[in-house]
Amino acid sequence: MISELVKKIKEKNAPVVVGLDPNMKFIPEAIVRDAAREHRELLFADDELVIAAESVWRFNKEIIDAVQDLVPAVKPQIAMYEQFGTPGLVTYWRTVNYAHEKGLLVIGDIKRGDIGSTSEAYARAHIGKVKVNGHDLRVFDEDFATVNPYMGVDSVKPFIDVCNENNRGIFVLVKTSNPSSADFQDVRMQDGRPLYELVGEKVREWGESSMDGEYSNVGAVIGATYPEQAKDLRALMPHTFILAPGYGAQGATAKDLSGFFNSDGTGAIVNSSRGIIAAYTKERYSRYGAEGFADAARAAAIDMIEDLRSVL
Amino acid sequence: MISELVKKIKEKNAPVVVGLDPNMKFIPEAIVRDAAREHRELLFADDELVIAAESVWRFNKEIIDAVQDLVPAVKPQIAMYEQFGTPGLVTYWRTVNYAHEKGLLVIGDIKRGDIGSTSEAYARAHIGKVKVNGHDLRVFDEDFATVNPYMGVDSVKPFIDVCNENNRGIFVLVKTSNPSSADFQDVRMQDGRPLYELVGEKVREWGESSMDGEYSNVGAVIGATYPEQAKDLRALMPHTFILAPGYGAQGATAKDLSGFFNSDGTGAIVNSSRGIIAAYTKERYSRYGAEGFADAARAAAIDMIEDLRSVL
Repeated sequence: MISELVKKIKEKNAPVVVGLDPNMKFIPEAIVRDAAREHRELLFADDELVIAAESVWRFNKEIIDAVQDLVPAVKPQIAMYEQFGTPGLVTYWRTVNYAHEKGLLVIGDIKRGDIGSTSEAYARAHIGKVKVNGHDLRVFDEDFATVNPYMGVDSVKPFIDVCNENNRGIFVLVKTSNPSSADFQDVRMQDGRPLYELVGEKVREWGESSMDGEYSNVGAVIGATYPEQAKDLRALMPHTFILAPGYGAQGATAKDLSGFFNSDGTGAIVNSSRGIIAAYTKERYSRYGAEGFADAARAAAIDMIEDLRSVL
Repeated sequence: MISELVKKIKEKNAPVVVGLDPNMKFIPEAIVRDAAREHRELLFADDELVIAAESVWRFNKEIIDAVQDLVPAVKPQIAMYEQFGTPGLVTYWRTVNYAHEKGLLVIGDIKRGDIGSTSEAYARAHIGKVKVNGHDLRVFDEDFATVNPYMGVDSVKPFIDVCNENNRGIFVLVKTSNPSSADFQDVRMQDGRPLYELVGEKVREWGESSMDGEYSNVGAVIGATYPEQAKDLRALMPHTFILAPGYGAQGATAKDLSGFFNSDGTGAIVNSSRGIIAAYTKERYSRYGAEGFADAARAAAIDMIEDLRSVL
């Protein structure tokens, strides 16, 4: 699967993923109004969670339509859907499906991880098949999933096994983009190295049996906000593909990002969520207005791609 | 909320939580057959995920009925529901509701954790209220949730804020019950201490502003399989309530567990999942047969409670 991502990045010359993390705060009012009206007409009901979920779906659909020719992938953040309960998760599932229809790969930002049998259930639901009554069923059906490694190898291994069976991929959290990622990830070990280096080493090791072209289907999440750490990790794990969140709203710039890539310009994909999907709320794209949110997202995606091309 | 749990444990004299982690492997065939038949009759449809979800719901309902007078709480593991997609999550939600109706507290074993705004969405969905269109809605509505701390304080803080606003609780993963928990959690820091002690220290510190009676609403997960480590952590965090999974199927015995409790016999709750809900599949309870799975679960819960009482 990672070779598929590398191919699509090359085709579009855009190592960019659009984060679909819709927040009700920036979904235009007109979308919510229409969703509520049509929902009432259809169901004679007025369930706020269903209206929110339907609004998110309509918003996502327009964003996907606006960026589908520009980028290789989208990354829905499942928390933003889970917050609206099962109607929200229906929207998550519809979003994954719709992105696939439009030829995009989907990175499910789920950050799951648990003891072995439980991790296996998550892995099967998201990037594999779940066995029910003798049938093998795809459930959420993303191409990649993010995984939290705090519980150690037996919590990650089931994800890798499911990747290998299904030609899918994972990105394991190594050094996350948030300010407090230092609290535990940067703790110095007895040999003086930070913990995230040990995690990176393990990710490299775990990925060796999942090579798919130049890179492994077992990738790493490294925050765009930590360029120095990324340089070290890039050297440590040359065949590990990096998912780098934190560009834009979280403060990282293109210059910060060059060290995430190998010398041939491959090896990483950079995520921007709010910076693209809520672009119309920013001064720079305010001319589009709320009704032009999808065009504003397209403009912001183009600017981001140009920005990254300038340093690669 | 933790004071509520302490009270219920005392009332029932049972520091025991029943883990509702149903696996299709041990749901009796008759339940699946009935669920499928009635589902077809109702919906003229044959969706395998819906049948699985309905089977789990019927199974859980009987388990809850069988143990509700014995234990203070249940702990559904959300992965086992998420694997069946949105129908599975409807069952999760129904299970939480039904346990509440029966006077049980619910620990949502969700192990979520992400950057700040995303953790907030998870926290509101599970133990708080989600704002939609000016309305504050309860979504999954558990009393407690488990939280993964790998991303640091800003990933845990939103859970604590939501706890404080809603009088709910969390259990932060400190030293998990699985064999590989040593991979990162036991890494020695420069002062020679293992990482989990630093995590434990932070959990204690984070919990200081969330005291609710003798204990904090910010608790810790410490695997029953690590009694030595638990003794150190118990001393380090006297006001932190411990959720201890790993009894039974994962190998821990009552003797292993005494060190998890304070000298007054409070301060911990021990989980057993398969050991109780799949008891009928074990030699010891095989006389109940598949049709008596709920009675077998009741017998196993009684035995576990007796076992723990013997060491407290």
